[in-house]
Amino acid sequence: MPLSANNPDRTTWLEVAPNSDFPIQNIPFGVFLTRDDIITIGTRIGDFAIDLGAMHQLGYFEGIDLTDDIFLQDSLNDFISDGRKTWRLVRNRISEVFEANNPKLRDNMEHRDVIIFTMEEIEMQLPVSIGDYTDFYSSKEHATNVGSMFRDPEKALLPNWLHIPVGYHGRSSSIIPSGINVRRPKGQTLPPDSDEPVFGPSKRVDFELEMAFITTDANHLGEPIPVDEAEDYIFGLVLFNDWSARDIQKWEYVPLGPFLAKNFASSISPWIVTLDALQPFKVDGPEPEKPQLPYLQYTGPKSYDINLEVYLQPEDSEPHKVSTSNFKYMYWNMAQQLAHHTVNGCNVVSGDMMGSGTISGPTPDSYGSMLELSWAGKNPLQLPDGSTRSFIEDNDTVILKGYCQNDQVRIGFGECRTKLLPALK
Amino acid sequence: MPLSANNPDRTTWLEVAPNSDFPIQNIPFGVFLTRDDIITIGTRIGDFAIDLGAMHQLGYFEGIDLTDDIFLQDSLNDFISDGRKTWRLVRNRISEVFEANNPKLRDNMEHRDVIIFTMEEIEMQLPVSIGDYTDFYSSKEHATNVGSMFRDPEKALLPNWLHIPVGYHGRSSSIIPSGINVRRPKGQTLPPDSDEPVFGPSKRVDFELEMAFITTDANHLGEPIPVDEAEDYIFGLVLFNDWSARDIQKWEYVPLGPFLAKNFASSISPWIVTLDALQPFKVDGPEPEKPQLPYLQYTGPKSYDINLEVYLQPEDSEPHKVSTSNFKYMYWNMAQQLAHHTVNGCNVVSGDMMGSGTISGPTPDSYGSMLELSWAGKNPLQLPDGSTRSFIEDNDTVILKGYCQNDQVRIGFGECRTKLLPALK
Repeated sequence: MPLSANNPDRTTWLEVAPNSDFPIQNIPFGVFLTRDDIITIGTRIGDFAIDLGAMHQLGYFEGIDLTDDIFLQDSLNDFISDGRKTWRLVRNRISEVFEANNPKLRDNMEHRDVIIFTMEEIEMQLPVSIGDYTDFYSSKEHATNVGSMFRDPEKALLPNWLHIPVGYHGRSSSIIPSGINVRRPKGQTLPPDSDEPVFGPSKRVDFELEMAFITTDANHLGEPIPVDEAEDYIFGLVLFNDWSARDIQKWEYVPLGPFLAKNFASSISPWIVTLDALQPFKVDGPEPEKPQLPYLQYTGPKSYDINLEVYLQPEDSEPHKVSTSNFKYMYWNMAQQLAHHTVNGCNVVSGDMMGSGTISGPTPDSYGSMLELSWAGKNPLQLPDGSTRSFIEDNDTVILKGYCQNDQVRIGFGECRTKLLPALK
Repeated sequence: MPLSANNPDRTTWLEVAPNSDFPIQNIPFGVFLTRDDIITIGTRIGDFAIDLGAMHQLGYFEGIDLTDDIFLQDSLNDFISDGRKTWRLVRNRISEVFEANNPKLRDNMEHRDVIIFTMEEIEMQLPVSIGDYTDFYSSKEHATNVGSMFRDPEKALLPNWLHIPVGYHGRSSSIIPSGINVRRPKGQTLPPDSDEPVFGPSKRVDFELEMAFITTDANHLGEPIPVDEAEDYIFGLVLFNDWSARDIQKWEYVPLGPFLAKNFASSISPWIVTLDALQPFKVDGPEPEKPQLPYLQYTGPKSYDINLEVYLQPEDSEPHKVSTSNFKYMYWNMAQQLAHHTVNGCNVVSGDMMGSGTISGPTPDSYGSMLELSWAGKNPLQLPDGSTRSFIEDNDTVILKGYCQNDQVRIGFGECRTKLLPALK
């Protein structure tokens, strides 16, 4: 099926700022509350939110095999279950309807009034009901940095790391969309030079710059997914802030991994940018430093050139960029992650979410967490307002941004914005 | 609200074997397919499955505030969301309807015909749609045994263990009900004296004898649950076999915990026995060996005296008991686990499942895994058919059983039965 929606020459009759993350070539999917408090599935072009439920009721998807209520849902799960062919048909059709020379909706003011909202009129929701959430640990730079700080700089990378896309299970219930505040968690920590833990608010709350992909129904229990088919089961990606409490993590994480240090909240951007929209930005990944087992060996480029930025905004101050990274730095790509996840027969279904792990680049200004940027607090960051930061302070807002750019088109993710509130009294 | 359904003197007009796990004092909840292939929520008395959807349609729950379709669902989640008061009203009502001297249903053959099935006529399903699954590690004997084998016998218990009910997140999608076969997983393992992993079927597939509790909607994100209120949010318990591939686990588990070694499948018994039904079997737990932080300090008994058994049945052979344990051995109880899980504000909702961790007792015949029973293969078990077992072999069936017993009543869980199929070719 042709990806006609990706045509870089296409323009739209909607007004779109030249530097928008959401040109007509993007067409992401999300869920929002309309001004009438109705929940619907929608897309975004420029600064307009488009109600796909209303479009469907008014016949704009005629000829595509869709159930009547497929877009009148509070999650994208059923639509994602419909599979890649349907996603493409729908995305291509949306592109056609909004194409500059198509008068059908453009010239129908009555329809436009119920289909098109400004972003200020709507409220974005979590786009999927996330069944299982897995987090990988696929940035070699991040794993090396953390290993150096938490364990031994001489053996920073553990023996399995170059053989396995290391991953672990996370908590789905506490995944929240951009815009929802997070409370500083309390928990057990071990003070320096003590054998007895203490209880109180975490003193080392951190962000983690990640991306996450959302899957469709992929396999039956017991059946693995081959690495070169894995991308067929990826619907799209979001920005992902895997909030972490480093002091809680340090005390709790042996031997079974992080738990309360992570599951108090994780934030995602609300628009799922489809893997289809990202096709022009496929690039080769890093060369393997050790031979990889056959089930992890893939053909063709499977990394994506996505520019990533992190901004830290103290209360009553301006956002300040603290990190500039790129999704292409990942040592293990999404196809390898999904092939690994299922090689034992583990079943993956519509709405599962898989995080990349913190995406750190090779230079200190590309590190994807405060832990690395401040090197565990040894080198606090200087902010323009004169304050310093080793970790995230109360009422700070963390903003992740991401976009692909070539000389023809920009495909962006918008932002993932979260404010850290003080701990409960 | 009185727990009249627990009255030990009550008898029923249904025929129930004297040693049944399901006397009229149990009244567990499950989901099954009827002989007409209709999915419904039901309960069990003796060897009869009772269709609560049909009972509700025929007016037997009159006066209880229930939606019309509350039992005509493929999961118990909505019913569990209704909360403890509703569970008690329904359980008490079922007990009254089936009480020996109540003629209402007993003498209505037409109603009996659509409400009551034999167990052979129905097919049990997964009882809940499990959003998040957490596994704890709360048996001191198990943690000590594993620590001795995998790490250092002198420091078997890690420094955090006596302070934290250690837990980690698991995979929900691969949780299956009793009776569904599991395939031997393939994966990476590190051969002895090698630096290079190999790929193939696991050679060390193991069971883990656990119990798991199912929660109701408990808290909003950011708000902890006090330990002495935690049991209010526990609907009931099931038997739980946390299938494990020890050789995969050993290679993959540092630093983020077990992943593919566990998520290929986990089996639960299909009937959720309510915490209410287990009230007569509350007992004091082990004395803390170190002071516990205030949020983990509870009042009154919060452990449960549940006898547990594991049987191993080779193909074409009889089941052979390999372990006799008890849920009361757990060092950390369910209330402590739930208080800990939420102390950072992590939200818990209806249908979440929390496993106890392997339940090993103090003596070698009470160990809850082959890893411990065969001491990592050093002391293979002798089976009556002359064969030996260090781990689970292809086509072996593992059967978990559990029951409470006093001089008045027996409340049981039935069984959790799973056959291990050979790896895919």
